[in-house]
Amino acid sequence: MNLERSPRLLDPLFADDRMRAIFSDRNRLEGMLRFEAALARAEARVGVIPSSVVPTIESQCRAELFDIEKLGCATALAGNPAIPLVKELTALVAQRGREAGDFVHFGATSQDAMDTGLVLQLRDALDLIESDLSALSGILAGLAVAQKKTPLAGRTWLQQAVPVTFGLKAAGWFSAVERHRARFRAMRPRILVLQFGGAAGTLASLEKNGLQVAEALAVELGLVVPDVPWHAHRDRVAEVATTLGLLVGTLGKIARDISLLMQTEIGEAFEPAAEGRGRSSAMPQKRNPVGSAVALSAAIRVPALVSVMLTAMVQENERGMGNWHAEWETLPEICTLTAGALQHMTQVLQGLELDVTQMAKNLDATGGQILAESIAMVLSANLGRPRAKSLVEQACRQASQQGRHLRDVLMENPQVREQLSSSDLDGLFNPSNYLGLAEALVDRALGSQSKKSHSDSE
Amino acid sequence: MNLERSPRLLDPLFADDRMRAIFSDRNRLEGMLRFEAALARAEARVGVIPSSVVPTIESQCRAELFDIEKLGCATALAGNPAIPLVKELTALVAQRGREAGDFVHFGATSQDAMDTGLVLQLRDALDLIESDLSALSGILAGLAVAQKKTPLAGRTWLQQAVPVTFGLKAAGWFSAVERHRARFRAMRPRILVLQFGGAAGTLASLEKNGLQVAEALAVELGLVVPDVPWHAHRDRVAEVATTLGLLVGTLGKIARDISLLMQTEIGEAFEPAAEGRGRSSAMPQKRNPVGSAVALSAAIRVPALVSVMLTAMVQENERGMGNWHAEWETLPEICTLTAGALQHMTQVLQGLELDVTQMAKNLDATGGQILAESIAMVLSANLGRPRAKSLVEQACRQASQQGRHLRDVLMENPQVREQLSSSDLDGLFNPSNYLGLAEALVDRALGSQSKKSHSDSE
Amino acid sequence: MNLERSPRLLDPLFADDRMRAIFSDRNRLEGMLRFEAALARAEARVGVIPSSVVPTIESQCRAELFDIEKLGCATALAGNPAIPLVKELTALVAQRGREAGDFVHFGATSQDAMDTGLVLQLRDALDLIESDLSALSGILAGLAVAQKKTPLAGRTWLQQAVPVTFGLKAAGWFSAVERHRARFRAMRPRILVLQFGGAAGTLASLEKNGLQVAEALAVELGLVVPDVPWHAHRDRVAEVATTLGLLVGTLGKIARDISLLMQTEIGEAFEPAAEGRGRSSAMPQKRNPVGSAVALSAAIRVPALVSVMLTAMVQENERGMGNWHAEWETLPEICTLTAGALQHMTQVLQGLELDVTQMAKNLDATGGQILAESIAMVLSANLGRPRAKSLVEQACRQASQQGRHLRDVLMENPQVREQLSSSDLDGLFNPSNYLGLAEALVDRALGSQSKKSHSDSE
Amino acid sequence: MNLERSPRLLDPLFADDRMRAIFSDRNRLEGMLRFEAALARAEARVGVIPSSVVPTIESQCRAELFDIEKLGCATALAGNPAIPLVKELTALVAQRGREAGDFVHFGATSQDAMDTGLVLQLRDALDLIESDLSALSGILAGLAVAQKKTPLAGRTWLQQAVPVTFGLKAAGWFSAVERHRARFRAMRPRILVLQFGGAAGTLASLEKNGLQVAEALAVELGLVVPDVPWHAHRDRVAEVATTLGLLVGTLGKIARDISLLMQTEIGEAFEPAAEGRGRSSAMPQKRNPVGSAVALSAAIRVPALVSVMLTAMVQENERGMGNWHAEWETLPEICTLTAGALQHMTQVLQGLELDVTQMAKNLDATGGQILAESIAMVLSANLGRPRAKSLVEQACRQASQQGRHLRDVLMENPQVREQLSSSDLDGLFNPSNYLGLAEALVDRALGSQSKKSHSDSE
Repeated sequence: MNLERSPRLLDPLFADDRMRAIFSDRNRLEGMLRFEAALARAEARVGVIPSSVVPTIESQCRAELFDIEKLGCATALAGNPAIPLVKELTALVAQRGREAGDFVHFGATSQDAMDTGLVLQLRDALDLIESDLSALSGILAGLAVAQKKTPLAGRTWLQQAVPVTFGLKAAGWFSAVERHRARFRAMRPRILVLQFGGAAGTLASLEKNGLQVAEALAVELGLVVPDVPWHAHRDRVAEVATTLGLLVGTLGKIARDISLLMQTEIGEAFEPAAEGRGRSSAMPQKRNPVGSAVALSAAIRVPALVSVMLTAMVQENERGMGNWHAEWETLPEICTLTAGALQHMTQVLQGLELDVTQMAKNLDATGGQILAESIAMVLSANLGRPRAKSLVEQACRQASQQGRHLRDVLMENPQVREQLSSSDLDGLFNPSNYLGLAEALVDRALGSQSKKSHSDSE
Repeated sequence: MNLERSPRLLDPLFADDRMRAIFSDRNRLEGMLRFEAALARAEARVGVIPSSVVPTIESQCRAELFDIEKLGCATALAGNPAIPLVKELTALVAQRGREAGDFVHFGATSQDAMDTGLVLQLRDALDLIESDLSALSGILAGLAVAQKKTPLAGRTWLQQAVPVTFGLKAAGWFSAVERHRARFRAMRPRILVLQFGGAAGTLASLEKNGLQVAEALAVELGLVVPDVPWHAHRDRVAEVATTLGLLVGTLGKIARDISLLMQTEIGEAFEPAAEGRGRSSAMPQKRNPVGSAVALSAAIRVPALVSVMLTAMVQENERGMGNWHAEWETLPEICTLTAGALQHMTQVLQGLELDVTQMAKNLDATGGQILAESIAMVLSANLGRPRAKSLVEQACRQASQQGRHLRDVLMENPQVREQLSSSDLDGLFNPSNYLGLAEALVDRALGSQSKKSHSDSE
Repeated sequence: MNLERSPRLLDPLFADDRMRAIFSDRNRLEGMLRFEAALARAEARVGVIPSSVVPTIESQCRAELFDIEKLGCATALAGNPAIPLVKELTALVAQRGREAGDFVHFGATSQDAMDTGLVLQLRDALDLIESDLSALSGILAGLAVAQKKTPLAGRTWLQQAVPVTFGLKAAGWFSAVERHRARFRAMRPRILVLQFGGAAGTLASLEKNGLQVAEALAVELGLVVPDVPWHAHRDRVAEVATTLGLLVGTLGKIARDISLLMQTEIGEAFEPAAEGRGRSSAMPQKRNPVGSAVALSAAIRVPALVSVMLTAMVQENERGMGNWHAEWETLPEICTLTAGALQHMTQVLQGLELDVTQMAKNLDATGGQILAESIAMVLSANLGRPRAKSLVEQACRQASQQGRHLRDVLMENPQVREQLSSSDLDGLFNPSNYLGLAEALVDRALGSQSKKSHSDSE
Repeated sequence: MNLERSPRLLDPLFADDRMRAIFSDRNRLEGMLRFEAALARAEARVGVIPSSVVPTIESQCRAELFDIEKLGCATALAGNPAIPLVKELTALVAQRGREAGDFVHFGATSQDAMDTGLVLQLRDALDLIESDLSALSGILAGLAVAQKKTPLAGRTWLQQAVPVTFGLKAAGWFSAVERHRARFRAMRPRILVLQFGGAAGTLASLEKNGLQVAEALAVELGLVVPDVPWHAHRDRVAEVATTLGLLVGTLGKIARDISLLMQTEIGEAFEPAAEGRGRSSAMPQKRNPVGSAVALSAAIRVPALVSVMLTAMVQENERGMGNWHAEWETLPEICTLTAGALQHMTQVLQGLELDVTQMAKNLDATGGQILAESIAMVLSANLGRPRAKSLVEQACRQASQQGRHLRDVLMENPQVREQLSSSDLDGLFNPSNYLGLAEALVDRALGSQSKKSHSDSE
């Protein structure tokens, strides 16, 4: 029977293939087998099992020796993949040395192998995410610096508000990415821990050697021994989910920004062009924001998957049922979708095309009204704020009704002319003169981060 | 590069393989290609394209002609799989007849092919679910009848309340399943509709023939022409998700019931035993409720996936981006997880083992207090309700403190003895005498349904 | 102690106050008290309790007699509000007639009162939603007719695709609303049922009269007796949630459309203006889409609340704990947020302002490229599709690079001039000539619905 | 019109009233008004506004001066509560000094006030949660120590597995709570930051004084100035949601454990008894786990609300619409439900009643089979693992079939008798002899934490 899922057709679009490889079936087995091999070494070192059996056990702890489909069928009966894997491993080892077979998986429970294997996968996953985030951070810093002085319309509620710079926009993205990097760094030590507790967390079958074996096992795997086994306490793995969920929210936000800027009528920024990328068959003028679409889809899917991980935390007693199972495909999916979105947005931002002319044109779309706040501020000095605001509001209304530029309407107003010359008004209607801290904030964002990173590495 | 997802190791546990086959990559292509072939036939019939090209087009509309991995890579650039599929199909057709190539996918947009293909897959999916539900319904009706008189402790808030029967429990499950069947029947005509609108829903490239082609195309595919194209109105596909979500909630509820009854300390019902099923390697006494675990995991995962489908409904203008993408893997996942849970629970209920002796023993676990309500009701007749309740409450407290049976404590009470003989009390403490409507309700549930089904089939 | 929640500051924005009133504390009590009064009448009619006590019981079944805050404190201990309510009601009744006190809530369980009370609230809620939907449907039908011939740019992936009409857009909205109305009609009989089962669903305390009482009680309340009590089967209430969830998805979709059309740079449609509505204090030129913002926020919040209702379906045995509790505030919140979004969008669509000039202007934003598909179709007749497409693609590229109108570029092409005169091209570049079925589909949508409504009402 | 929500009836059950007070309407106003007052002081200090107006502005920044219902109605039009609040505040101030009115909210945008006000509320919320967590941590540490040697059945998949101790269970809970405390400490500096950016984040209306004002304002409020304004970057507030979501998962897990232990048939642990607490009206023998029910309901509701916060992160451009609105009631609800669950579980654990006799009785429920692993381990020494396991499995099967104690069956086996005397077997069947590291892990959990806390406070 063909149990094919839909990996090959849509996966290249949604998933990061490096992350997919980390969470492949084979690698899942690999993680559990690394646990089993390390367990044998650790137990031999502590003297719980004979050293002589270790090479035989190690020799069979290779994922390619196992038939994944056969294990899959057995998993459907056993309720988890570690049970048939251990059974099969034991049989393979016993063929090579009867005594060795006796010491496979000694004292451990299937969840020990599964959770520790998962932690090993998560270590690779976090390495990948953090490395990609570091690259993205560099790209965004570069954008922020390069576009530090590029004015465009700031938009709130999808309405033009006041001018901003593209550099400030990029600095906002950058600053969020830096916060995510800090979260990953802070989370790491809570995640990279061993799971080793035996049937119900007491390691009773190892008598008094349990802790020593645990220490040795952790050293083998480069992990840390936690206070107590955490079979039914899932906050560690759920935290990976929430931290990725936060990241994907930011990626979605950037994707939303870019797809909005890429609208036909706005046209200020574009995903990079490439042969076959985002092209419609029937409409040659269209260029679809494919990377942003992927990130936006992740930003819809991942929050719900995060809620699965949180809901699944309510695990019964010493080890749960059902809720634990709910994690097995969900956490890999979160990792893979997040990495896919990250990869797409990195490419998008790396090759982002900006149309500065269009930005300028759009800044003029309201006939100067985008600078209404600025004018009102200046007039406030003499007229007081209420009268200044009311004057400008009236002028805006008139300009809209008559389809004229706000500057021209204001020029007709005696109160305005009293205070402001024609060239004053020209200055006021130059968006570059109403950018406030935009430039300073870019410096601040980039500077403060470089300081932080520096102190981090000390 | 190996883009393997995790299908083979965990899928046999969580997924129904028939449903997985419906939503395989190959079948996804198949659905789109059936659309393309039917479109050619329909357009030829209406006279929009020459009849002579139809056989050539049809001959290439076979999924096995396409390289899924290559299409996958092209999908990652194009943003959806229909674009490269149509391109490749056009090339294949053109090789066989240059003119024919001109009329592939004529007037359609990629989403027309994708959505109609999805509807064809959903038709198979609904057939499968409804057929499995029908089987489950029969099993539950059988259980309800067979156990109509089997008393066990009714439990509320996980506390013993008053006696019920296993038949009533099964009738409750049955009645819920029947409601789900009605929902599927009601939903079907809203789902099995064509998608055909061209680039933005106007079918402009077909000039005035659009509606005729749509009608002919719908006939070809056994679908109905909707009022208007629904590219960006996703309530239809989202309703499949919500309806499956409701079903999986009931499956989870049944699974929770069974796993609770199967607890070591309760031991009233058991998932069927089978070689290797639910067995622990280290603890021979254990039998894990594997089927229930799978259904419970689906009942945690599917609600979140439903929320994805609902959130994704906010699609922009004539066709959305990102939110549409969010559906592509989510709806198949909902179908597959639900079908998997349904398959597991059908097996569990088919082979459910009951321990009637243990049910009787547990009915006695409170030393008769589970019948306190019954006693209070009887005593109310003479003492009035408040005094009767207070008398019984006091007796319960005394019985608990002294570790005695409630009957014995009550027998010492003069007010009780005045009204009730020892054999009266024996009768009152027989759970089978306090089952109220349990039996009648089973008949009612089964009877009303058979009537309804009957009228349905008329 | 002040237990004030945040109702008055934000509720007027997010909630529909009529729906809020339906789910007020007082009305929650009212629902349970209507159950208790009807129960007394029904039981007296069947002869289970003396008729003489009914007036006394009825006289106290008035919500205003109860101190909500006191009941709230007792609820925190008892675990549900019906327990203290019944206790308090019994005390009030007993003060007026000792015997009457004995027959309050006779044979019922607290969940009977709570669930039936909820069903009574839901009946009002569904009435409100269906009535509002009917109004919205009328508004949308009006819009579709009025704007049947108004061309604007069709947009897919946020990019201009081909022209559509505003009438078609409105017909799409209308058609979705009609499907929702059909869902509500189909759901109603599953929802409007009595809950009455006593402690564990057997009505054992009523001996053999249970079903008769249930029938009489249902008549009193205008409800139907279900097959079996449904204390732990929550698909009925969850279906209210999913059906509202589907509706709010459509409302969000409409809101997204309008807010996108209202962007400064697009400016084709506007929420109605009103004093103080959507105005910024500092930026007089801005008009924020407040109604759409509310609907969009509901479309983010409600899907997650729906997932709560689905997750909560896994209720234990005869009556659940925790999961049942999870419903109590969630379902009212879903109703209230949906009604709020519906109210806002009805107002928005009722007063929607269209700027037809701007629509025409935006149709020209691509320098004619929005009609590229149309040109390619026409040229295909002679050149064949591949050559026609390639010719047009090249012309589009050239037009973009040189900042020229596509028409002008094409006019220079000998192959084009061979086939098309200048006035042919003028016609082809008139968006109104490339609207395909837009008009017919509006008629179809409105017509088919009026037929359906007609047959519904027969 | 009465816009009453349902606060008073159900809130005392679900919500923590201290947290509810923090997020009351009045306190929401208070937060915004503290921002406005501090802004005036800061701007005066920097010289942006005259010092003379500060006292007048400050004098009106008192929540009790404002009519919440009136502001609510204006909010429904304006789209957020800060707009009418500032308008009303300006009017109040202007009545007292026309000039002062000119300088209210000077240079700020409504979201500056709302977000900073929210941060002030969140600071109180985090203080409350962290203080309650500290108390809970102490209670759990006490439980772990007190029950360090109390054996009970370890249960996995709801089946008895091997013995554990109640101390180890409590240490697992404790260890999870300590991890949550660490998360809150790590998150704090990311949350307690000022929001101050003006209309689109540039503070343009303050010209070059923006940063100085921001610094002074932050000092006034005890907050930190962020790198850049974060109006549309919501990872900070979303992180509060995810961190609370993780906590509520653990609270739900503890609640599940307790409610399972409190089942009639298990009866090992009980929520504290109190007058009216968890009592059924009709069934005097019942005691419902009310506190656990509340925590479990929170553990279903909060994950979905977390997904709302994550989904809402996709905010447009400089300030979002709809998605920002989706946060306003959601984050307070998360805080309040989490605090309610925390409060309930603290009470439950503070007064937890244990029945050690029942624990011992349940340890015997399998007729010694709970110690099957232990026996197999001992027999392995001589027989080798496969034969030992097979022997014990067979004995278990025989014991179950014959309804005998495993010890008795084993005693009949010559291979067993060869190795083990009757008193050896007695020892092996004493659960206290098969507790492995249980005691050591309690010490480890408590010790490592006390060390960590110590170093934290250095």
